[in-house]
Amino acid sequence: MTEKNNAEKTADLLGKIREQRPLIHHITNFVVMNSTANVTLAIGASPIMSHAHEEMEEIQEFASALNLNIGTLTNYWVESMIKAGEAAGKKGTPIILDPVGAGATSLRTKAALNIIVSVPVKVIRGNASEVMSLSGDDFQIKGVDSLEKVESAREGARRLAKKLGKVLAITGEIDFVTDGDRDYEIHNGDEMFGNVTGTGCSATTAVSCFNAVESDAAFATAAALGYFGFAGEIAAKNSNGPGGFQSALYDALYNIKTEDIIDGVKIKQI
Amino acid sequence: MTEKNNAEKTADLLGKIREQRPLIHHITNFVVMNSTANVTLAIGASPIMSHAHEEMEEIQEFASALNLNIGTLTNYWVESMIKAGEAAGKKGTPIILDPVGAGATSLRTKAALNIIVSVPVKVIRGNASEVMSLSGDDFQIKGVDSLEKVESAREGARRLAKKLGKVLAITGEIDFVTDGDRDYEIHNGDEMFGNVTGTGCSATTAVSCFNAVESDAAFATAAALGYFGFAGEIAAKNSNGPGGFQSALYDALYNIKTEDIIDGVKIKQI
Amino acid sequence: MTEKNNAEKTADLLGKIREQRPLIHHITNFVVMNSTANVTLAIGASPIMSHAHEEMEEIQEFASALNLNIGTLTNYWVESMIKAGEAAGKKGTPIILDPVGAGATSLRTKAALNIIVSVPVKVIRGNASEVMSLSGDDFQIKGVDSLEKVESAREGARRLAKKLGKVLAITGEIDFVTDGDRDYEIHNGDEMFGNVTGTGCSATTAVSCFNAVESDAAFATAAALGYFGFAGEIAAKNSNGPGGFQSALYDALYNIKTEDIIDGVKIKQI
Repeated sequence: MTEKNNAEKTADLLGKIREQRPLIHHITNFVVMNSTANVTLAIGASPIMSHAHEEMEEIQEFASALNLNIGTLTNYWVESMIKAGEAAGKKGTPIILDPVGAGATSLRTKAALNIIVSVPVKVIRGNASEVMSLSGDDFQIKGVDSLEKVESAREGARRLAKKLGKVLAITGEIDFVTDGDRDYEIHNGDEMFGNVTGTGCSATTAVSCFNAVESDAAFATAAALGYFGFAGEIAAKNSNGPGGFQSALYDALYNIKTEDIIDGVKIKQI
Repeated sequence: MTEKNNAEKTADLLGKIREQRPLIHHITNFVVMNSTANVTLAIGASPIMSHAHEEMEEIQEFASALNLNIGTLTNYWVESMIKAGEAAGKKGTPIILDPVGAGATSLRTKAALNIIVSVPVKVIRGNASEVMSLSGDDFQIKGVDSLEKVESAREGARRLAKKLGKVLAITGEIDFVTDGDRDYEIHNGDEMFGNVTGTGCSATTAVSCFNAVESDAAFATAAALGYFGFAGEIAAKNSNGPGGFQSALYDALYNIKTEDIIDGVKIKQI
Repeated sequence: MTEKNNAEKTADLLGKIREQRPLIHHITNFVVMNSTANVTLAIGASPIMSHAHEEMEEIQEFASALNLNIGTLTNYWVESMIKAGEAAGKKGTPIILDPVGAGATSLRTKAALNIIVSVPVKVIRGNASEVMSLSGDDFQIKGVDSLEKVESAREGARRLAKKLGKVLAITGEIDFVTDGDRDYEIHNGDEMFGNVTGTGCSATTAVSCFNAVESDAAFATAAALGYFGFAGEIAAKNSNGPGGFQSALYDALYNIKTEDIIDGVKIKQI
């Protein structure tokens, strides 16, 4: 598909979310609970934040996507994720994982791997270090600077996606999405994202919203990142620092019209 | 009382809050802890957020209202609410319950009922499904759309308020407050509330602040919702989306003068 | 040093933070987790929020300061703080404590004292009641209004700083920092800070960022409070209430140039 086709399909998916208002179950970290709930609403979906073991199964009866995030994990919360993920798996509800800090501490790497082997995660969204830490000992990443290194990281990501049977989304200056066969590059975003906490987690929330209405996980993920990054570009224009940016980001996610997307979202299949 | 009388009395209560700065103990959910603390401060009261069992009783020695919210409940937190509620009950401190998600999952319905039978809750604030789920099997709510349905839901709420001996506040397009005998309709608010997380919980915080300074719980609750809704109207005018709205809401709560309220707050006793 | 020297040194330290981007490990309360992470980023440092016992030691391998805050404490979290603090102590990483609510409940006073005796806290930042509650029975504070009372409170703080061997920072209308020998007064800030939740905790975050790059803890603490208070002055000018202030505060922290500091920061050694 051409970049324009991709943008049009992104607009369609956003329209679907706003029409269907899918419920996105988040089991996420304390830092971003408020902001990811707000991002879910601003996109047009509906958030439920819950981690009580007793209701993990019941919530899957009405959730359209399950968003797992290990940002401030403890064992209880990882167990919540697995309970919810097992029920979501039975129903075929898409599960999206944000492995915050995987690779940085062994608890987080192990927790992410534990979740991946326990429940049928469909998409993993993180930065390069987080995502590639899930490859075990096979892959070492030491700064992704040069074009050469980028290509080598991508090759590693493709292999890992294939091995895991999942869509991987590595966000950074240029976001990269792969299912091992098909790759997307997303040329949207703004460097101000790096100055606001939880924008990575919020990108994952967008990925969950789009996967709730589209079964092609690789494209849904690329579409979510294109739309989210484009909203960031608008927010950066309408603000003057990280405080204004956060608030302008919610406004942009909410106000972007589907027709704006067609010119703004830049998703290349490569 | 006329609508104007109600608005004047609302202005008086707001003046009292700002003068006395009552301490509002919140045992609430992770998503809205920051926003409800900010709403408490913007109104002119003082928040304390705490759930440690060891200090639940001690905090009631200086709290003027106890705000309970089951939005991200686990057993430990429900126990905190009951410990705090027992101590508050002994002192006669008003207890306000926000039964987030009651009716949606059985854990939440049970937790809300457990709290209600364990401690002397004075006011319950929720949407129609949440509040009416507490009626047990006697009442089924299936969408509250037509005027006829609204009246039938209200009749159910009146009966439930009487049965429980509590004030019930059902918020929606038009807020409704009843103690079983007296009813109030509040014609304030803006649809943007629905696009920001925690605005329902924040309305409950306003209810707690007003109940901290006024023993007539039905009126205090109506007054809180009138003032909060009016602040939302101002915020909607001063913003351009949900991000700006949240920030403008705090500003409006803080900046509203008692004289503004007299023209702005629309509370009808019906 | 003159006030101008102090401002110049503050500018230097801010430049160092932005260059080195030190990682600040926060074990903090649920209310302010998002805002203190954002403050850390806006200053130019990097936050990690974590409390899982399993990774408390590992995180100290790469953290440059440890920020402890007991705002919504339970036993598990206090244990996390002690585990992290022991590891930080071994490495010589500065530990900063915000004893939120110490003096208000016995659980909090005990928890703060427990942390102080268990791990080598370097700086304690709180309001007068919180900090002076740590003196045990030796010191009673009953409102700090008159100049005479201020001097008596300061004399108490000096003695306590010496006894504990720590830097104490008491924030209020004029912030006061002492290590028992050297005192600083900081003439920056705005009363709007009192209308936004978590601004005290955020000041402590600034203290942690500055202590991460400067071993003279008394000066680093004074510098942090000067810069943070100056950002508050700018934010107050650029906003119209507590909602706008919070967002403008992040913007100011981020946008302040080191040369702005030289005229804006007012730190007096006394």
